[in-house]
Amino acid sequence: MSYLNERNLTMLVDFYELTMSNGYFLNGMKDRITQFDMFFRDNPDNGGYAIIAGIEQLAEYLDNLHFSDEDIEYLRGRGFCEEFLQYLADFKFECDVWCVREGTPIFPHEPIVTVRGPAIQAQLVETMLLLTINHQSLIATKANRIARAAGGRAIMEFGSRRAQGFDGAVYGARAAYIGGCAGTACVLTDRKFGVPALGTMAHSWVQMFDTELDAFCAYAKAYPQDCTLLVDTYNVLKSGVPNAIEAFKREVLPRGFRPKGIRIDSGDITYLSKKARKMLDEAGFEDVAIVASNSLDEYIIRDMLSQGAKVDSFGVGERLITASSNPVFGGVYKLCAVEKNGKMEPKIKISENPAKITTPGAKKLWRFYDNETGKAMADLITLEDETVENGKPYELFDPDVTWKRKTFDNFTAKPLLEPLFVKGKCVYDYPSIEEIKKYCSEQIDTLWDEVLRFENPHNYYVDLSQKLWDVKNEMISAMKK
Amino acid sequence: MSYLNERNLTMLVDFYELTMSNGYFLNGMKDRITQFDMFFRDNPDNGGYAIIAGIEQLAEYLDNLHFSDEDIEYLRGRGFCEEFLQYLADFKFECDVWCVREGTPIFPHEPIVTVRGPAIQAQLVETMLLLTINHQSLIATKANRIARAAGGRAIMEFGSRRAQGFDGAVYGARAAYIGGCAGTACVLTDRKFGVPALGTMAHSWVQMFDTELDAFCAYAKAYPQDCTLLVDTYNVLKSGVPNAIEAFKREVLPRGFRPKGIRIDSGDITYLSKKARKMLDEAGFEDVAIVASNSLDEYIIRDMLSQGAKVDSFGVGERLITASSNPVFGGVYKLCAVEKNGKMEPKIKISENPAKITTPGAKKLWRFYDNETGKAMADLITLEDETVENGKPYELFDPDVTWKRKTFDNFTAKPLLEPLFVKGKCVYDYPSIEEIKKYCSEQIDTLWDEVLRFENPHNYYVDLSQKLWDVKNEMISAMKK
Repeated sequence: MSYLNERNLTMLVDFYELTMSNGYFLNGMKDRITQFDMFFRDNPDNGGYAIIAGIEQLAEYLDNLHFSDEDIEYLRGRGFCEEFLQYLADFKFECDVWCVREGTPIFPHEPIVTVRGPAIQAQLVETMLLLTINHQSLIATKANRIARAAGGRAIMEFGSRRAQGFDGAVYGARAAYIGGCAGTACVLTDRKFGVPALGTMAHSWVQMFDTELDAFCAYAKAYPQDCTLLVDTYNVLKSGVPNAIEAFKREVLPRGFRPKGIRIDSGDITYLSKKARKMLDEAGFEDVAIVASNSLDEYIIRDMLSQGAKVDSFGVGERLITASSNPVFGGVYKLCAVEKNGKMEPKIKISENPAKITTPGAKKLWRFYDNETGKAMADLITLEDETVENGKPYELFDPDVTWKRKTFDNFTAKPLLEPLFVKGKCVYDYPSIEEIKKYCSEQIDTLWDEVLRFENPHNYYVDLSQKLWDVKNEMISAMKK
Repeated sequence: MSYLNERNLTMLVDFYELTMSNGYFLNGMKDRITQFDMFFRDNPDNGGYAIIAGIEQLAEYLDNLHFSDEDIEYLRGRGFCEEFLQYLADFKFECDVWCVREGTPIFPHEPIVTVRGPAIQAQLVETMLLLTINHQSLIATKANRIARAAGGRAIMEFGSRRAQGFDGAVYGARAAYIGGCAGTACVLTDRKFGVPALGTMAHSWVQMFDTELDAFCAYAKAYPQDCTLLVDTYNVLKSGVPNAIEAFKREVLPRGFRPKGIRIDSGDITYLSKKARKMLDEAGFEDVAIVASNSLDEYIIRDMLSQGAKVDSFGVGERLITASSNPVFGGVYKLCAVEKNGKMEPKIKISENPAKITTPGAKKLWRFYDNETGKAMADLITLEDETVENGKPYELFDPDVTWKRKTFDNFTAKPLLEPLFVKGKCVYDYPSIEEIKKYCSEQIDTLWDEVLRFENPHNYYVDLSQKLWDVKNEMISAMKK
C-alpha cells in the first residue's frame, strides 16, 4: 500500500462539497458531466515560474476514494439524504483526469490539472486535489529557487521540526528533492520515497561530553568515514574549528580516511566560513567541506556567496519547508464546462477583478519549444478540438494587449496535459522520484535566464488561441449585458 | 486507535538523532540520564503571547513509539551497529515528560515541554516533539489573534485546500478551534476531532444552473432550514443579493424557516456588506447574516470592522491555516542537564547572540496570578528543587536588567509544567477538545489587555529565580574564561 493510503483521506473534503453534491442529487444533476480546471494566478515570491509537484499523491488518492461505514454514519447524522448516502457507500470514481507531468515548470492562468466527469465526483475531489498540488508545488518551487541561488552547491532540506504538520515534513521533503535539493534530514522521507537522508550531530552531542574536543573525538572515532563536526556550540573560531582539526588528526586520519566537513549553524556565517576555510586549509584540510545552516533561504544564500562566503553546501530548514517568504500556493479549481445536449458547454466566472475571470471551456495546453535553441518560448491554451501543427507558422498574441503578436514557425509544440485517469481508471506511469527530479531539472533548463531570475523576471507568455479568446470575450460581453 | 497512530510516525526523526544515538551507544552513554527543554524565542507576528497546542498528539506519539522490522532493516542498510539496532527493535519509552497544559498562553524563553530520560530516548523524540508542538501552537496562536480581531463574531476555518499537507489541514483546523475558531470547513477534522464542520456552496453550484436565481432557488429548496447563499458569482449588488432575496422569499419563507445568510467572497467586502445589509434589511431580512471570506486575517478584519463593515461572521482560509504572515513557530529543544554521579548537572549552550544562550538545569515554571484581579502578572522559572509559597512575599527581577525588581505578596503561584509521562507511562488525562478550547479562552482572559494587543504589546515578564540566575551566570562566566 502506498504511504498516502495507509490512511483513508476520502473525508478530507470541505463540507460544502458534500452540501453541493447532496444538492445535485436532489436536483437530478448527479450524473451531469462537468469539467473543472485547476490553475493558479501568481508565481510564488514574484518569481517567473512555478513547478508542479504532488501528481503521484493525487493519483494515489483518486485511485483509493472510498467512504467507510463510519463515514456514512457520520454523514447520516449530518442530515444528508439516504439516496446520496447510498451513492457514497457505492462510490466509484469515473472521471477523466489530465495533468501536467510532475516536475514541469508551470505558469499562471494555464490549466495544470483538468477533471471531467459526473458533477458530484468532480466536485468532491476539489479539496484534496488542490491541497496536494498546492502544497508540493509550493515547496518544489521554493527548493528550486534555493538550489539555483546556491549555484551548484548542494542544498539539504533540514526543516522537519518546523514543518506545518507531519505531512508537511514528509511530502515537503519529497517536493524539495524534486525541485532540486540533494537530500533531506527526514528519515521517514527516505524510507517512504527514497530521498537520501543525511545528518551528523546537534549541539546536544557536544554538550554531552566534558569538553568539545572529547565530543569531536568520540564522534570521529564512531564515524571516521563520514565525519562532519558541528563547530559552533561554544565559539567557532576559538574552539570549534581548532578542536575539529585536532579531532580529524587524532581520530580520522590514522584510520585511513579523510574528514568530510564542519558545520556552522550560527553567527555571521560569511565571515566565519572565510576564517574557518583558512584554518582548515592551513592544517592541510583543503578538501574538507564547510556546511552552513541557520535560517537560510535563496536571498541569504545569494548574498553570502556574493560576499565570498566559503560554503560548500547548505542545510536549509524552516524557510524552505514552509516556503516562509510566501507560504501559500494559491491554486484554484473552477468549473469550466458543463455538458448540455451531449456537448460540453463553456462556463465562466465573472469578477470585477479581471485577473479573477476564468477561461471557459474544455481546453488543451501546449508548450512551444524553439527548434534551434530547445528553449520554451510560450504556452498556448486552445479549445479541446483545436490542434497545433509543428512547422506550420502559428501567430500567438497577448490575450490582454491583443496587438502584441508574434508568428512562430520553427517550433515544436508539445501538449502538456497528459491523461492521469481515463473513465476512473488510473493510467499514471508512476515514474521514480529520480526520474521526476531529472525531468524537472531538464525542463527548468528549457527556460530562458530572463524567466529564471529572481528580480523582475520576464513574464513567460501564456496565450489563448484566437478561437478560445473569442469564446471567452463573447461570454464576458453576454454576461455584462 | 487514535487518528495519529493510524500511521507509525516513529521514523519521523532527523537523521542526526540516529547518528547521535548510535554514537551514544558506541560510547557507553545510552543510559546516561539527560534532560531537554523545549522553548521558543519570539512570539509570532510580534504579538505578546502564544498558545501551546498539540499536547494530545505528542502524548499519542510518545505512547506508540516503536520501530518495525522494515525500519530496522532500513537502518541496518545505513550502517548502524547491531547492538543499537537491537535496542531500537526492543525500544521502550522510559522518559519522564512534563508539559504546559494544552491551550495555555506561553511566553518566550520558558520551558514548555521538558523530557528527562536515557540519552538516546530523549534525543530521538526531538523532531516529532518540536514538529507537533510548533505546528499546532502556530495555528492556535494565529486563530486566537483572528478571533480576537473579530470581537466576538464567529470565525470559520476554511483553509484546507491551501494547507501545507494533509495534516496541515486536519491538525491545523483542530488547533484553530482550540485557539478560538467556531468551526471548520474540513470534514475530516469533524470526523476525527469533533470540530464542527460547516459549508454551503461554491461558485460552481451557481454556474451549474442556467441562472443565478435558479441556482439559489434549488439550494434554498434543498436546505430551507440552513440556507446561506454565495452572492458574488456574477455581481454582488446587481444580481447576487436581489436574487438571494427572491430565493429566500420563494423557497425559504413558505416552508416556515428563516434564511440564514449570504456570503460575499470577493470585491470590496466592507463596501459591499454595507450595501447588502441595507438591501436585506429593506426586504425584511434583518436577521439574515452576512458572511465574508477571501484572504482575510486579523489585520484585514480589524480594518473592515473599524470601517463599519456589516459582517456577522468570517470564513478565514489560507492566512490562518498557514499563519502566512509568520508561518514558522520557532520552538527549539535543547539539552539543559546531564546526570553525573547521581545528580543532574546543568548544561548550557553559549552563543555570541545573548538571546540564543540557553537556561541551564532541571527547572520548574510558575505563573503568578494576582489574587485580587485574577490576572497573570509574571512567569517565574526556578530550579527544580525550589518552591514558591503563596502569600509569602516574593521578589521578581528582570534577568537582563537586574535592577528592575518588584515584590509580589497577594498572589497565587501555579506550577505550569504538569506530568505527561512518568517513567515512560502516559499519565495524560486527555481532556476533550471542548475542555481545551474553554481552558484556552479562560486563560487568555487572565492576560492584561496590554499583553493581548496587536501593536507593541507589553512584554510579559518571564523571570528567573535568583538561584537559577546565579547558576546561569556562573556558567557563562566559566565558559568565557
